[in-house]
Amino acid sequence: MTSRPSPRPARDLPRTGPERELSAAAQSVVAGDRRALGRIISEVERGDPSARAVVQELYPRTGTAAVVGLSGPLGVGKSSLVNRLLQLLSGRGKRVGVIAVDPSSPFSGGAVLGDRVRIERDPSEAGVFFRSMASRGHPGGLSQSTRETIRLLEAFGMDTVLVETVGSGQVDVEVHNIASTRLVVLVPHLGDEVQTLKAGLFEIADVFVVNKCDLPGADRAARDLSELAQMSPERDGWRPRVVQTSTLAPTGIEELWQAVEDHERTLRESGGLAALRRNRAREELRSLLLAGLQSRLAEALASSKEWEALVEEVGEGRLDPYAASERAYDLVRPRL
Amino acid sequence: MTSRPSPRPARDLPRTGPERELSAAAQSVVAGDRRALGRIISEVERGDPSARAVVQELYPRTGTAAVVGLSGPLGVGKSSLVNRLLQLLSGRGKRVGVIAVDPSSPFSGGAVLGDRVRIERDPSEAGVFFRSMASRGHPGGLSQSTRETIRLLEAFGMDTVLVETVGSGQVDVEVHNIASTRLVVLVPHLGDEVQTLKAGLFEIADVFVVNKCDLPGADRAARDLSELAQMSPERDGWRPRVVQTSTLAPTGIEELWQAVEDHERTLRESGGLAALRRNRAREELRSLLLAGLQSRLAEALASSKEWEALVEEVGEGRLDPYAASERAYDLVRPRL
Repeated sequence: MTSRPSPRPARDLPRTGPERELSAAAQSVVAGDRRALGRIISEVERGDPSARAVVQELYPRTGTAAVVGLSGPLGVGKSSLVNRLLQLLSGRGKRVGVIAVDPSSPFSGGAVLGDRVRIERDPSEAGVFFRSMASRGHPGGLSQSTRETIRLLEAFGMDTVLVETVGSGQVDVEVHNIASTRLVVLVPHLGDEVQTLKAGLFEIADVFVVNKCDLPGADRAARDLSELAQMSPERDGWRPRVVQTSTLAPTGIEELWQAVEDHERTLRESGGLAALRRNRAREELRSLLLAGLQSRLAEALASSKEWEALVEEVGEGRLDPYAASERAYDLVRPRL
Repeated sequence: MTSRPSPRPARDLPRTGPERELSAAAQSVVAGDRRALGRIISEVERGDPSARAVVQELYPRTGTAAVVGLSGPLGVGKSSLVNRLLQLLSGRGKRVGVIAVDPSSPFSGGAVLGDRVRIERDPSEAGVFFRSMASRGHPGGLSQSTRETIRLLEAFGMDTVLVETVGSGQVDVEVHNIASTRLVVLVPHLGDEVQTLKAGLFEIADVFVVNKCDLPGADRAARDLSELAQMSPERDGWRPRVVQTSTLAPTGIEELWQAVEDHERTLRESGGLAALRRNRAREELRSLLLAGLQSRLAEALASSKEWEALVEEVGEGRLDPYAASERAYDLVRPRL
């Protein structure tokens, strides 16, 4: 059990209803019970409805943390950077949650791709809560599990949440985009070749980090990125900033965090935060709706004999899948 | 235009209706028009309904090719292996389509991860059709685009389709699982560490390829894999086989293809092919249903003022997203 400020400041936006008594599970999160927090996050990952209910209860206590996404190719040193940021923020008395989203494809496993730095940290360190999330499970989607874990961390008392995405698929980009400030981490060689990278990189970066800046070419990479950033359209009064870091010395970590704080402040002052929250709300509602439809669909199909007959007809080539899916739709439609 | 056997043998399973006159687009695919084929695949990727209609028309001419999936971590030499298989199969008079699914995350781009071997091939080579598919686009899902591209390649006259997945996310595994024979490519070092790999690897491999078998440790890796394969449950009369290859000499390419043919034959003889087709049909129908729901959902939301009001309430913190998604569901329900 760590010391923690109590009580948590409530969500800065008006509550949805009268204050209700919290359930025991929700209370234990608010009280700073690390084991309870870990357990509820696991339930969230499995799609347990009771965990969803806890998050809903705690919702008025959320929305307060700076959520910082770190993304970038394998091997650029994201985990070391997270460790350095944790040192800096802990030193400033911040309470920090870290969510590391691991691509749990059959090929990846940290052991193979070697990305285990993070595990060296003491997970019970005061003021820090580290959570590694596999990309398996999550019947409601990995992005939704991440949103709910962020909320639990906020209700637990974290004022900063770092979300590291290790993979680089479409889902990882979705997770990255949940953050209020998004860091894209590159290394000199990659920065140098940024012109060949997809323009999409600028859409998902509020701050570019040229890490391993002790390597040759770092200055040039940073300059090239800055020039491109200057040409990219301003969003909410902000153009992507470029920071050089090294986790060895360390170098540039304070400048990096300054850029994050500047971005968060600009977001608030430009009115961009309201737009961001609306966009995030839209994305989340869409994802909740779709997940709900998906589970209703699964239920409707599980109990349908006609469905199995259609599957068989297609499997045997007596019906094409396009015609079959139209018939299946008529079957499930009344059950949605 | 390449020489090709005509007419294509029809699907070996009974047709769904009377022979209809083919549309001009479908005719051009059947006639072996490479440009038309490429154009229709692009339309499939964009989710163009007219392309879907062409695939549906051509459906009776599909289901005949051996579809071989190649999957594995980056850097194990999948593309070189594809090239060697192409040489072997072309030499035997086979007509081969290749689909390379590229992970088009903002970080990847072939230039960065260096995986460009395949581009060195002459794309107009007789009897070979190469197609690289980005993971962007695909409103109906990348797996569905892959299924439809396979069908177009079959109708075009290909008797073998190689599907290489470069990425390793959940979607890539789905794409890999479309194949009738699934190769998982490793290298000695990775094979050696296979005990630390997830058991899931055995679920997606009919044949393990220990590539770069000129590297030290290949024999041991192959032996370890074989032992694990012997302990894994038999599926449809088949246990994963292990083949060592090198694309330099080349070595083992014929043995590899022999393993593929043995697996395809075992599937047919054990009755596993019927089960496989039924499972594939189920997966495809589910994916078509879900994509249909998703597009109906998008349509329903696009024209709903109440939806925008809900988004705003959540964005401003006046309503939690869980309660809001239930209200949104009631809104869209009648429009599904």
